[in-house]
Amino acid sequence: MAKRGMSQSILKIDINAIYDNWQSLDKKSSKNVETAAVIKADAYGLSTKNIAPILAAKNIRTFFVAIAEEGIAVRKAVGNDADIFVFSGPMQSDAATIKEYNLIPLINSAHQYNQFQLNSPNQIFGIQLDTGMNRLGMEEVEFTSLGKNISNACLIMSHLACADEPSHTQNLQQLKTFHHLTDDLNIRRSLSATGGILLGPDYHFDLCRPGIGLYGGLPFEHSKPVVKLSIPVIQSRRVLAGETVGYGGNWVAKSETQVATISAGYADGLIRAIGNGQILLYDGEIGCPLIGRVSMDLITVDITQLGYIPKTLDLINKVQTIDTIAHAANTIGYEILTSLGARYNREYISG
Amino acid sequence: MAKRGMSQSILKIDINAIYDNWQSLDKKSSKNVETAAVIKADAYGLSTKNIAPILAAKNIRTFFVAIAEEGIAVRKAVGNDADIFVFSGPMQSDAATIKEYNLIPLINSAHQYNQFQLNSPNQIFGIQLDTGMNRLGMEEVEFTSLGKNISNACLIMSHLACADEPSHTQNLQQLKTFHHLTDDLNIRRSLSATGGILLGPDYHFDLCRPGIGLYGGLPFEHSKPVVKLSIPVIQSRRVLAGETVGYGGNWVAKSETQVATISAGYADGLIRAIGNGQILLYDGEIGCPLIGRVSMDLITVDITQLGYIPKTLDLINKVQTIDTIAHAANTIGYEILTSLGARYNREYISG
Repeated sequence: MAKRGMSQSILKIDINAIYDNWQSLDKKSSKNVETAAVIKADAYGLSTKNIAPILAAKNIRTFFVAIAEEGIAVRKAVGNDADIFVFSGPMQSDAATIKEYNLIPLINSAHQYNQFQLNSPNQIFGIQLDTGMNRLGMEEVEFTSLGKNISNACLIMSHLACADEPSHTQNLQQLKTFHHLTDDLNIRRSLSATGGILLGPDYHFDLCRPGIGLYGGLPFEHSKPVVKLSIPVIQSRRVLAGETVGYGGNWVAKSETQVATISAGYADGLIRAIGNGQILLYDGEIGCPLIGRVSMDLITVDITQLGYIPKTLDLINKVQTIDTIAHAANTIGYEILTSLGARYNREYISG
Repeated sequence: MAKRGMSQSILKIDINAIYDNWQSLDKKSSKNVETAAVIKADAYGLSTKNIAPILAAKNIRTFFVAIAEEGIAVRKAVGNDADIFVFSGPMQSDAATIKEYNLIPLINSAHQYNQFQLNSPNQIFGIQLDTGMNRLGMEEVEFTSLGKNISNACLIMSHLACADEPSHTQNLQQLKTFHHLTDDLNIRRSLSATGGILLGPDYHFDLCRPGIGLYGGLPFEHSKPVVKLSIPVIQSRRVLAGETVGYGGNWVAKSETQVATISAGYADGLIRAIGNGQILLYDGEIGCPLIGRVSMDLITVDITQLGYIPKTLDLINKVQTIDTIAHAANTIGYEILTSLGARYNREYISG
């Protein structure tokens, strides 16, 4: 490996904080309730390979991924003891992968169920029910059509559409539907991700499966921040009143301004929309405003107030979290996380 | 490798089209003008490793990257003959990388120049001038302060801030400034990326360096599309009038609707903002509207008009290009490209 260059940004990922967040969420449910970890989308963009083994070593025994291919990386990372559930269920050509890596598909339809029995007889599976989100999972008619066949399922789950909004009426509706569909069954149940855990014990059932809360995002307000992003200043210049900065000449200096150019942009997942809101780049405690359009590899910052040129500026830190940035960009913290690109020097903190 | 699962999307990348686009852009300048290829940001998200060797084999001899670390991958991909320029210039700790991989830094300031002479005496370099974008490159005062020292530069370049808007007055201003700063020098010159090439011969100088145009994006209207994205349908359901679909229950069915759930989302770079505009998912020629919020791993689609359930739906194709999608999401095609994620099965077409 070549030595790290000073034009490469540093993304620090605090795995201790992920585990602390898991513990905090785990404590919100009773001791009988298992707390799993959702590590789909490469652990929300933060790297399954680096994070999953540490969580497994801390005795987290159940993981969730989106598609079977992701399960391969998780199995390699966590060893043979953990359970790995696949939300998208068993697509026909996934049979070999599911068997080889001992994954547990969450069956979403009668069609998937029948295919799975044909392709993978006697293999372990879970069932995903739709309780009103109308996205993934069996509806009542399909589910009841399976009759007693499903008694071998090791888990029966559903997903809340509005758990981020505690007062939304759909939460209670989905809870009622879940009870209606599952109360008579003797199968372990799961309804809640992070948002559902925070809705309280009625939503916990036998297993909770936090995702975003582990990684420091809302709706888990009291989560510890997990990522810190420091971007090198690669140039600085004095710009006179009336001069423009960046693409389209969109930003115009009202007075003499010291502009820093930093070495990351939307190709690094710093989505262009962050330029629409008020974003600060931090030198320690001091925040300097992002100015002009976000470029593919570069961002410009008004550092006039500093009076000096810093070596790096932080975009994500304890003050300006993924959710602060998401708010400015009219999106959600989840997207800020999963967008973080491949060009960073990633440093993992653990142990 | 496990067999590809049917829940993994397929991203087809047509390297022949990239080369065709390069040829089309090359033809727009006279024979004395060299046409390079910008392959920063992992070849605009499409993979330097897969694309650069093929372009090098077609006799493209000059490449541009954003930071020194990217130059490593390009050097490995293209062999020792090609020139590789680094836009961000030589940061102090890049010296070893620049030397080992024979990269050519574009020096952006007198400070960088002095450091470079100290750390890397007798090494080849280029110079980047600021001609009005105020982002990267030396301004006149700095540049003239270097005096005759810069006569060893192998290239002198600048970048246009408004080339996408041919009628923008800043184009002509930057052209004039570039002439003013460089006319007396006997050094090869470059001012234009894709947009500048299209502004006409006055902007071409000795070397043009197209980026986005190679990859099928505006402002090169006549570029060939390079990417095609097909996403598996993993479930479909009938939704009654009044039912909601997806997060927040935001989408409400006006009448009975057949909804397909497809297996890609914003974690795959399909930014959430595409859900704000009118986006279609195609089965062949027939476009079906995206409905509800884009989730991390899933998107929902109204396929009522099809009358059947397709195996896959295409998000990016010849009709709905990266720029159509960008328009719906209030961004630019560049961002749609560089966001495309790591979870696709990528198929490269070449030869």
